[in-house]
Amino acid sequence: MDERRFVDFLEKKFPFRRGLGIGDDASVVRCGKSFQLISTDLLVEDVHFRLSDVPLAALAEKALAVNVSDIAAMGGRAQYFYLGLGFPPRLGASALRRFFSGLSRAARRWEVELAGGDYSRSRQMLIAITIVGASARPVRRSGARAGDWVGITGPTGESALGLKLLLAGETRSPFILRHQHPRPQCEKGLRLSAHASAMIDVSDGLLLDLSRLLRASGVGAEIDYEKLPMAPGFRRLCRQRRFSERDLVLAGGEDYQLLFTVPPQQEPRLRRTGTAYHLIGRVSARRGLRLRENGRPLRVTKLGFDHFSAAPGR
Amino acid sequence: MDERRFVDFLEKKFPFRRGLGIGDDASVVRCGKSFQLISTDLLVEDVHFRLSDVPLAALAEKALAVNVSDIAAMGGRAQYFYLGLGFPPRLGASALRRFFSGLSRAARRWEVELAGGDYSRSRQMLIAITIVGASARPVRRSGARAGDWVGITGPTGESALGLKLLLAGETRSPFILRHQHPRPQCEKGLRLSAHASAMIDVSDGLLLDLSRLLRASGVGAEIDYEKLPMAPGFRRLCRQRRFSERDLVLAGGEDYQLLFTVPPQQEPRLRRTGTAYHLIGRVSARRGLRLRENGRPLRVTKLGFDHFSAAPGR
Repeated sequence: MDERRFVDFLEKKFPFRRGLGIGDDASVVRCGKSFQLISTDLLVEDVHFRLSDVPLAALAEKALAVNVSDIAAMGGRAQYFYLGLGFPPRLGASALRRFFSGLSRAARRWEVELAGGDYSRSRQMLIAITIVGASARPVRRSGARAGDWVGITGPTGESALGLKLLLAGETRSPFILRHQHPRPQCEKGLRLSAHASAMIDVSDGLLLDLSRLLRASGVGAEIDYEKLPMAPGFRRLCRQRRFSERDLVLAGGEDYQLLFTVPPQQEPRLRRTGTAYHLIGRVSARRGLRLRENGRPLRVTKLGFDHFSAAPGR
Repeated sequence: MDERRFVDFLEKKFPFRRGLGIGDDASVVRCGKSFQLISTDLLVEDVHFRLSDVPLAALAEKALAVNVSDIAAMGGRAQYFYLGLGFPPRLGASALRRFFSGLSRAARRWEVELAGGDYSRSRQMLIAITIVGASARPVRRSGARAGDWVGITGPTGESALGLKLLLAGETRSPFILRHQHPRPQCEKGLRLSAHASAMIDVSDGLLLDLSRLLRASGVGAEIDYEKLPMAPGFRRLCRQRRFSERDLVLAGGEDYQLLFTVPPQQEPRLRRTGTAYHLIGRVSARRGLRLRENGRPLRVTKLGFDHFSAAPGR
């Protein structure tokens, strides 16, 4: 069962009448004049992270970043969160304190508060965070319409490059810092919410997350590879180390840039807010995702990271 | 670090300014004219359950029951929930479907909706549920005052007896059903909310949960053992099988009865609502929990189940 079929199965079995449906980065429930956004993420040792690759304080920060980004991706402001923590006793109490120090620092940075939680010992470390946020105008995945621009808030592939460098034994690189200290686009998410027609954060790779947005909207898109933003030094380093630049840019996850669509008449207004972003393509009525480089079609082999690829089959 | 010190550490490190504090069954945040209650529970394979002891559908039901009960314990109505599921691929897709069938049945029974979630493979199965509810008048643990009655909605020890029978190889007993199909006291929680001064659900054992309530309220209590309700056939079965009745009644967890305190002037009003409950003792200004049987002091050796007993020490 892949993610799409799994979500279909759940939507049929569990209609969410009180809210606006399942399948976005966060659920949307009306609360007075505003909307409450809630999102859950589960990180499991040896599936999403290895304890040997990341210090515990950075791990806590990443776990929270993923969730803060989910709220930003809906155009909301994250407010408070709940932590379910499964912790292997073998790591010891000082490791537990390092984890909470990192969590506390990250919570202050993104102005979110810990509101409750549950703790258990466990063999694998696991972090289940549920985050609550609010938005006056939540942006869903399903609002893209033919003719809208496709935009992104910044370069992708940085975190994936950092991971590759880490795995190759390097320890110092701005890309490693990007991998260990993700930056959810909180302020940009808020500004985009007034203008974007659809939005998603790039957690599993540009193409995979874009294809999710397009599917939810029932549309397709043409993307121009040469318009994708690239971090300074990125291209050179990829060439030097013989890493596939395209794989990293198109399929590398965990950058947490915001990928959005904006109607042409809204785009000049968005531009005037001073938000930095890049227009990388156009939404089309014809379904599917078509990638071009300087006008010529580009074939894509690898879409991105699907957590379901290793889920129980059939 | 035991649970109390851990919660103290977290409260200092993570002040929750938006809410009414950490340490209750659920967090309390104002939402318009009402209050929103949110609670998180984490269940880990081989810590909270063994896959050999409980069918997957019943496990899903139990996981949801724990959370529904947390909301009932605050005098609220559970509305919707989020599921973080770590699932071992070796169990297969049909096991996953059995889990969701149980979850769907339980969600219908308690009138709660699945609002979102996250899925991952994992070696140990793990279930992280965050539940959202509402209450016009949330009842906290900290409201008990000297002179209040201590009350409970029904007998304790039934689930623990069921587990003992299961472990002894039996398969048919009403107590095994109680263990496998817990019954959160949703309606009673709502009725109690108008009158109780403090409330908690008995998840880890009567004495342990009562001592948590008393500590949060800064008071003590005298409890009369002979007033504790006992299920039909319970005493006889304990005697036959040489199980310690007192251990089961006082320290057996997972019954999800509601333990509450009620001011003497409110008690007649609560009585008139038709809610069934038992008065088992009295709150006193003198701290500590004193247990008597027919007026004579009773010594207690075992308090109940503390999930922290196996947490990293010191």
